[in-house]
Amino acid sequence: MSVAKVRVRGVDDTSISRRTARAYVDLLERRDWTGLAALLTDDVVYEMPQTRERIRGKDGFLRFNAEYPGDWHLQVRRVIADRRFAALWLDVQVGIGQQDACVWLQMSEHGLISKIVDYWPEPYDPPPGREHLVERW
Amino acid sequence: MSVAKVRVRGVDDTSISRRTARAYVDLLERRDWTGLAALLTDDVVYEMPQTRERIRGKDGFLRFNAEYPGDWHLQVRRVIADRRFAALWLDVQVGIGQQDACVWLQMSEHGLISKIVDYWPEPYDPPPGREHLVERW
Repeated sequence: MSVAKVRVRGVDDTSISRRTARAYVDLLERRDWTGLAALLTDDVVYEMPQTRERIRGKDGFLRFNAEYPGDWHLQVRRVIADRRFAALWLDVQVGIGQQDACVWLQMSEHGLISKIVDYWPEPYDPPPGREHLVERW
Repeated sequence: MSVAKVRVRGVDDTSISRRTARAYVDLLERRDWTGLAALLTDDVVYEMPQTRERIRGKDGFLRFNAEYPGDWHLQVRRVIADRRFAALWLDVQVGIGQQDACVWLQMSEHGLISKIVDYWPEPYDPPPGREHLVERW
């Protein structure tokens, strides 16, 4: 395969990944489980490394989201797509609370989401010793 | 400007961002502060949203890293670059402890890092009620 072909395929993968990543957030936000299902491979793997939890398969992942408690809402801060990978930086509202999320997506060769890794970084107090360098907001 | 030109510029920006993101980790790991300084804009902004801490300027950011306590080591799990943005998924060792990090980079028009947002998601216990859907590792 020529270099030119490889490059063109790379650009196409990136466009597909970017569109899929945006659609993933949009369909979750709209609780459109049928639409979301169409974006996922049957054997999609969902991982939350902070709790060392894993869900295998589309049905379990959809149920996890449908059952997720609270009035949660997702907004995209940033989408970064690169060939068959994407990263999502999200602003998540749960009730009156706000939290950021970092999501790593991996796509199959057919452009479906085959792996999702979710991080939910929580607020904490800064350690002492760097007050001379930082400002707080 | 033609669409073709915009596309070519986009691809170049992505290549530069990817290379810069990898070099950022490599130079931090090697404590090469001179090399790292050359990657940053003078007015680079570094933010840690979990503690609501911000450092403005290259000098403060370099000092923050030079003074950072512990025997820390960084390994790249994934680099995702997209035009003037990049996301880094890192495996961080601090002494005998391990932690993941999610880093969001923004580049200037000259390909230097102008903004860094660091997340340090910590382990926590999973909430009850989803044991029927998840496996643990």
